[in-house]
Amino acid sequence: MLDQIRRSHGHSRVELADTTGLSAQTVSNIVQRLLDAGIVEEAGRTSSGRGKPRTTLRLVGSSRYAIGVHLDPGLITVVVLGIDGDVVSRHARATPTAQDPSDTVDVLIQDIEMVLTESGIDRTRIVGLGIAAPGPIDVHRGIVLDPPNLAGWHRVPLRDAIAAATGLPVVLEKDVTAAAVAEKWTDEADGAQNFAFLYLGTGLGVGLVIGDEVVRGGSGNAGEIGHIVVDPDGLPCACGLRGCIAVSCAPLPLIEEAERRGVIPAERPDDHPTGVDAAMTRLVALADAGDDGADELLRRCSEHVARALAVVSNLLDVDRIVMGGPLWDRVGQMFTDTIPARLDELRAARGVHPVTVSGTVLGSDVGAIGAACLILDEALTPRTTSLLVPSA
Amino acid sequence: MLDQIRRSHGHSRVELADTTGLSAQTVSNIVQRLLDAGIVEEAGRTSSGRGKPRTTLRLVGSSRYAIGVHLDPGLITVVVLGIDGDVVSRHARATPTAQDPSDTVDVLIQDIEMVLTESGIDRTRIVGLGIAAPGPIDVHRGIVLDPPNLAGWHRVPLRDAIAAATGLPVVLEKDVTAAAVAEKWTDEADGAQNFAFLYLGTGLGVGLVIGDEVVRGGSGNAGEIGHIVVDPDGLPCACGLRGCIAVSCAPLPLIEEAERRGVIPAERPDDHPTGVDAAMTRLVALADAGDDGADELLRRCSEHVARALAVVSNLLDVDRIVMGGPLWDRVGQMFTDTIPARLDELRAARGVHPVTVSGTVLGSDVGAIGAACLILDEALTPRTTSLLVPSA
Ligand SMILES: [Zn+2]
Ligand SMILES: [Zn+2]
Repeated sequence: MLDQIRRSHGHSRVELADTTGLSAQTVSNIVQRLLDAGIVEEAGRTSSGRGKPRTTLRLVGSSRYAIGVHLDPGLITVVVLGIDGDVVSRHARATPTAQDPSDTVDVLIQDIEMVLTESGIDRTRIVGLGIAAPGPIDVHRGIVLDPPNLAGWHRVPLRDAIAAATGLPVVLEKDVTAAAVAEKWTDEADGAQNFAFLYLGTGLGVGLVIGDEVVRGGSGNAGEIGHIVVDPDGLPCACGLRGCIAVSCAPLPLIEEAERRGVIPAERPDDHPTGVDAAMTRLVALADAGDDGADELLRRCSEHVARALAVVSNLLDVDRIVMGGPLWDRVGQMFTDTIPARLDELRAARGVHPVTVSGTVLGSDVGAIGAACLILDEALTPRTTSLLVPSA
Repeated sequence: MLDQIRRSHGHSRVELADTTGLSAQTVSNIVQRLLDAGIVEEAGRTSSGRGKPRTTLRLVGSSRYAIGVHLDPGLITVVVLGIDGDVVSRHARATPTAQDPSDTVDVLIQDIEMVLTESGIDRTRIVGLGIAAPGPIDVHRGIVLDPPNLAGWHRVPLRDAIAAATGLPVVLEKDVTAAAVAEKWTDEADGAQNFAFLYLGTGLGVGLVIGDEVVRGGSGNAGEIGHIVVDPDGLPCACGLRGCIAVSCAPLPLIEEAERRGVIPAERPDDHPTGVDAAMTRLVALADAGDDGADELLRRCSEHVARALAVVSNLLDVDRIVMGGPLWDRVGQMFTDTIPARLDELRAARGVHPVTVSGTVLGSDVGAIGAACLILDEALTPRTTSLLVPSA
């Protein structure tokens, strides 16, 4: 019912009874409890045609909060969302070049504390914390296993470490799936959602919502696209093939190619994702300034991404593709300009079924926002509403 | 409720009330109507511990029937299923080399009539007919659009043609999805099903069941894998890439390569799928007889298929992969021997999540059986039970 109030932007008790199928009396009782707890408030009165005016209800964003943390190998983001989904506080920083994962976990915990302190939020109002992390993960044990771009990480029990430090309920989700959760939460389209979210960070991945359900896979590790071959003329890959995404259009191989071609100077001390991210910024700035070499590389990259999206969309026949993640603020323009037309040429169902391609409105924070939405989703389900509002 | 009776193999009224959530009185009324109509029968009595013995119920397979038709470019199959899912009659033939699609449609209709006549089934007991056809299809209009392997087919209104000829309600489904429907129907595993069905026919495709739901995509055209690159050293493809499935390990390019290498004689008059199918039979027989050239080609083909399945399983993190379709009776042994180990090497979640790989128990008829299951699924849902059994 809370989710109905959130999505409706102004349902009355009568309409809530209609959409939830609960009796008027039950709705009235629950609403009274939510009003008493300060989680919803009466927003105004509407009179739509016949009958007496109805009092509309809305969520009180400041009544409960959720924290979202996104650990990208290149970027750590912490957000605080009100129960209505609005971002009330955020902090982002380059992921430190720590050798020991526990140092990085300490940084995460410090950032969480800092954001909470700065926001001035009453901690008793925080219902939980979600973490988005690169896969593979062990979703049941809350462990980050051995992500290819997080050097030194092997079976790190991230969920329990954050739970112990914060005292909050914590859930762990794969980054690309968290991004899809955020997009699903934000979108208010009618009908079942059926989309792929192309996540652009240190790695590239795809979060999936099919038939209005988030696709996590049997072990929570859905969304790997790193070994789709997008360039048969490309470099050899550790998997034994050639020209996979992992060696063609992910940020590191793209920057390495730019350096080989002399488009940008080869001055990175190592392959840490924050240095690669800075080089990406430089490459995009060069292209924007009219550098042909930089422009050609970014066009090649977007061609490769279009080929990967064609594989995804041929397999799943999605209605739309949304793109976002930490790199989006830089590659967004090029991808928006070039990918839709190329994707359409490559789709098997091109004459049958249009696919829309767009950038997320959630920006680079989409992973962290999605992690927080996991907590809000849980809090807004009927089963757990009673946890927010004891009925005694 | 009918579906519960089908799946349970011996639920009593009490257990049906438990599993459906309906009241004992409602269950009793519905069961009485089903008994009167001859659709279910009392199967026996069980006493499980305390309480009085309960009467178990089962579907009467011969009370209602569904027809399934599978139009593969190389093979036409017609099956009749009892309402319990058992195949009671079948017929298969090579797809004729007709120039005009309407000639092929006439053959389909003749085959349907012949199977019905031979089976001796009372036509009033047939609830509908499902067609499985190669994509792309227009699922809403029931049109086969322009499948790459069905020469001359452009926007053929197959659903309505069959409906007009048979007087039956008809549904059209993509072949690979029909195969997944059949597998889902047959499987009695507990828990949500999460699998990919690799369909091996004139073309290769994938039917998907995710979270217990069949994935059809926005236009019913999910399951295209023809342009996944599986051989970066392979032949150029019309899509602009190289070494896609469509030019590497689909039957026609495989046979063409065998002919180029002199493994089998190049004596096909044309590329019609039935000739290709016969050549596949020959190639497999050669490999079985110890011919190294034939064996090498089939091993290469199974390596390519493993690479494609790795893409699917990395993206969707499925629990299992099932293989089947018209080619299965020939390539099944080789694929079963070689694919599981290779797939596991290529999977991103290999250390986290085992994936089982198996052949379907439904054999080459899986597409036709799935098409009939679409009708049975519809007939067994609560909404349409009343259509089978008028309550008056
Ligand atoms: Zn690779
Ligand atoms: Zn191709």
